[in-house]
Amino acid sequence: MAYNLLKGKKGIIFGALDENSIAWKTAQHCYAEGAEIVLTNAPIALRMGTINKLAEEINAPVIPADVTNADDITNLFVKAKEHFGGGVDFILHSIGMSINVRKNIPYTENNYDFTHKGLDISAISLHRVLQIAMKEDAINEWGSVVALTYIAGQRVFPSYNDMADGKAMLESIARNFGYFYGVEKKVRINTVSQSPTRTTAGSGVKGFDGFISYAEKMSPLGNASADQCADYCVSLFSDLTKMVTMQNLFHDGGFSFTGVSQAVIEQMEKE
Amino acid sequence: MAYNLLKGKKGIIFGALDENSIAWKTAQHCYAEGAEIVLTNAPIALRMGTINKLAEEINAPVIPADVTNADDITNLFVKAKEHFGGGVDFILHSIGMSINVRKNIPYTENNYDFTHKGLDISAISLHRVLQIAMKEDAINEWGSVVALTYIAGQRVFPSYNDMADGKAMLESIARNFGYFYGVEKKVRINTVSQSPTRTTAGSGVKGFDGFISYAEKMSPLGNASADQCADYCVSLFSDLTKMVTMQNLFHDGGFSFTGVSQAVIEQMEKE
Amino acid sequence: MAYNLLKGKKGIIFGALDENSIAWKTAQHCYAEGAEIVLTNAPIALRMGTINKLAEEINAPVIPADVTNADDITNLFVKAKEHFGGGVDFILHSIGMSINVRKNIPYTENNYDFTHKGLDISAISLHRVLQIAMKEDAINEWGSVVALTYIAGQRVFPSYNDMADGKAMLESIARNFGYFYGVEKKVRINTVSQSPTRTTAGSGVKGFDGFISYAEKMSPLGNASADQCADYCVSLFSDLTKMVTMQNLFHDGGFSFTGVSQAVIEQMEKE
Amino acid sequence: MAYNLLKGKKGIIFGALDENSIAWKTAQHCYAEGAEIVLTNAPIALRMGTINKLAEEINAPVIPADVTNADDITNLFVKAKEHFGGGVDFILHSIGMSINVRKNIPYTENNYDFTHKGLDISAISLHRVLQIAMKEDAINEWGSVVALTYIAGQRVFPSYNDMADGKAMLESIARNFGYFYGVEKKVRINTVSQSPTRTTAGSGVKGFDGFISYAEKMSPLGNASADQCADYCVSLFSDLTKMVTMQNLFHDGGFSFTGVSQAVIEQMEKE
Repeated sequence: MAYNLLKGKKGIIFGALDENSIAWKTAQHCYAEGAEIVLTNAPIALRMGTINKLAEEINAPVIPADVTNADDITNLFVKAKEHFGGGVDFILHSIGMSINVRKNIPYTENNYDFTHKGLDISAISLHRVLQIAMKEDAINEWGSVVALTYIAGQRVFPSYNDMADGKAMLESIARNFGYFYGVEKKVRINTVSQSPTRTTAGSGVKGFDGFISYAEKMSPLGNASADQCADYCVSLFSDLTKMVTMQNLFHDGGFSFTGVSQAVIEQMEKE
Repeated sequence: MAYNLLKGKKGIIFGALDENSIAWKTAQHCYAEGAEIVLTNAPIALRMGTINKLAEEINAPVIPADVTNADDITNLFVKAKEHFGGGVDFILHSIGMSINVRKNIPYTENNYDFTHKGLDISAISLHRVLQIAMKEDAINEWGSVVALTYIAGQRVFPSYNDMADGKAMLESIARNFGYFYGVEKKVRINTVSQSPTRTTAGSGVKGFDGFISYAEKMSPLGNASADQCADYCVSLFSDLTKMVTMQNLFHDGGFSFTGVSQAVIEQMEKE
Repeated sequence: MAYNLLKGKKGIIFGALDENSIAWKTAQHCYAEGAEIVLTNAPIALRMGTINKLAEEINAPVIPADVTNADDITNLFVKAKEHFGGGVDFILHSIGMSINVRKNIPYTENNYDFTHKGLDISAISLHRVLQIAMKEDAINEWGSVVALTYIAGQRVFPSYNDMADGKAMLESIARNFGYFYGVEKKVRINTVSQSPTRTTAGSGVKGFDGFISYAEKMSPLGNASADQCADYCVSLFSDLTKMVTMQNLFHDGGFSFTGVSQAVIEQMEKE
Repeated sequence: MAYNLLKGKKGIIFGALDENSIAWKTAQHCYAEGAEIVLTNAPIALRMGTINKLAEEINAPVIPADVTNADDITNLFVKAKEHFGGGVDFILHSIGMSINVRKNIPYTENNYDFTHKGLDISAISLHRVLQIAMKEDAINEWGSVVALTYIAGQRVFPSYNDMADGKAMLESIARNFGYFYGVEKKVRINTVSQSPTRTTAGSGVKGFDGFISYAEKMSPLGNASADQCADYCVSLFSDLTKMVTMQNLFHDGGFSFTGVSQAVIEQMEKE
């Protein structure tokens, strides 16, 4: 596909680690649709991943930025504005991490230093990015910001651990900042609640395969892929969706509104 | 704008009355994006409105169909398939009517014959269209159906009267049929919950101006226009949104998640 | 238990068929809490069930009323007011029926005469009861109305068929009438969304056992029983909940906000 | 009222500052219903408020505890178990604070050290209390935990600032911990989303009077008072609501599901 849907638009993509990343696919699809991109990720993620391959492919500079560090974010926006010769039209926030998850600490025994660190990276980072974007006047009028989330922000998925609380807070920040940025500059901010996706990050969650196959059986259209999520983000960055804001948008093949599917009932009836 | 986003796609648009109609704008935008269209409406609406002007403009046949009549719907699909040489890729359902509203009967005094008639036209019509489409195998794999609704399906807007209950039922039908059509043929079905819009139909609702100006003040981006709604529908008919189904999607400038805006608070403080 | 929580209160209970009915249990619990009761049901249900046993036990008159018949409802309120020497303080609406379900007609092939008949009995009946109560001024200030519903009003449960759309409409009617009755006379109206329950009515739904055992595995506290639902209704009729209105209240052991439970995941992983 | 609804039950009430506090009223109502109470609050709040008056009135020990301090919470549960001769049956969490609000820092300019501090007190405190309660096995089977929240957790109220994100996280913690505590020991955990209330804490929020009068005009039953909230909490601590868990329960006179009221529309139409 190539419709030139984002022709002339400029965007920043946070969180492309490797070619399994939704952020990676989104960068590719945005580029294919005519956008110019700046890539960014935390210095450690830049070392671990393969972002230079992507950078070359889509002709995008990589500007390192730790999303917990205000100076890094400021530098990112300053540099991006220089690079683009002006503000950006869209931002993808695809960032999430929980030390409690990594260390296999059960939800009921969470370590709160880890909780705070996780929140700072996974949720407050969106606030920080938007606060600094606003201060630097880095997002153009009618710009579009998307943050990726998961339905654990609304309902309990036991293995998702404290990332669930982080996603609930992330969605709240999108909604609240969406109000203020909307009133001030017509910028829209939404979250996309994606099917469980086999990314390098997602794989870290215990019981993730159980998640995925349950979600697949429960979703009338099956699980949405990373490529399909990238397509959906393109639509949300385009001028076709200018009045959609402060929403949590499920991109999940119908999982979110399926109470139970026939396929799951049949599995439940097995001995 | 013209991205060829719907190139090669064929669709049926219900409910274009005159150039204020959301359905009218949607037909135009779909055509501009490369789609071929069949227009339909109730015989009486065809007489009252100016649909031939649109039909000519976008080179679309008009096939009359009363959505409460199964034979009419069957005929519509049979004719559309002949015209297109195959099934359709998208359908817009933009139909709503309440006799209780027209006759200024307060909600608490509703006449139930009118309620049933209203439900049949406004909500069950979607079920009928989908049932017959399924029987006639008239929607292609990965097809997309959108029905227009209003937030009165979730929260009370006193003037909206029994159309609120009709919208709640319409959204339920979209969700339930979305499950079955998704499992069977990957067809997705969503509702778009649009800002109050000054269409010829909308104008019939008592206190509608109050609605509109309240919603305008309450929405960080202001009310969404009919043209913007048409754009959004285009995105939902396109291949960019294939995994979005069974959702009620607010297209309202942020109204739905704004508890109160500063503008409304200021108005409330006036003597 | 007996706290005299409803001492001095008078109520009408719709829908007690036999001792498995939630309405039956609710009548008993209300009586135990000091309330005086009038029982009502459709003439045919009165013949099929064993309501006289209950009537004797709780010293309540039985006033037949077909909820699709305005004269019957008017007569019910007139008689109840005579019996009580004044208005009522609470009403339980526990009524639901689908001919499409009874005749095993799949959702996608629903007969719309049956759909309308089902809506009239299952959803519009609540509107009719409230409309006539308002006209007859039959509910006292701060009265409480509860209608029983099921989560199929929000999410798809394939076997629930067109009762799902009926429940969505019922909840909308509770919400909308709750606004008007609240403004006019401080009457509160809520729906209770109960776990699947092995009542005589519930048993009619195909695949109901699958429902029940899935829900049991999915609910952290297990499924709520009819007796527990009766307790919850008592709390909603009491003076402790005077400011709760227009809500859909889940009484389901946590089912509604559990995305997946460990027990279900384990079952999914079985070959 | 006095029904002995909580006879034999023991509970801990967090957050009673002075006689305007919802926690204060709840302690009184629980005591009147036959419960034994332990009161607790942060040392600084104990000094600022008048809790000893309440303690004497309801014959309850006061055990100071800073909810950000694990040792304090552990000590609280150990002492409470000694006092009661066993575990507790209910807990009220009525705690919230934002330094960003106190310092009049606009949402878009929030200081993140303050954000973290606010989250720790307002949201993570609930997790900490529950984690330690579980470790100390301090809540009896079928115990009930209620945390107070506000609808800003779902929709934007501009003056509510970062407390909105804190409430969203609080509600998520209630839901997630509710799953685990439910599975393990049948303990239920809910949040009550109360009307804006003129407490000493609430008064700190800028534009709070605007909030209150808007909410009053928007709510069919008017705003719920602190006394009514206490009644509702009593019902949730009682055995009548054992199967209600993981819910966010609106106690707001219908505000949450009123899209607009006639009273607000009329005010909007004023010049």
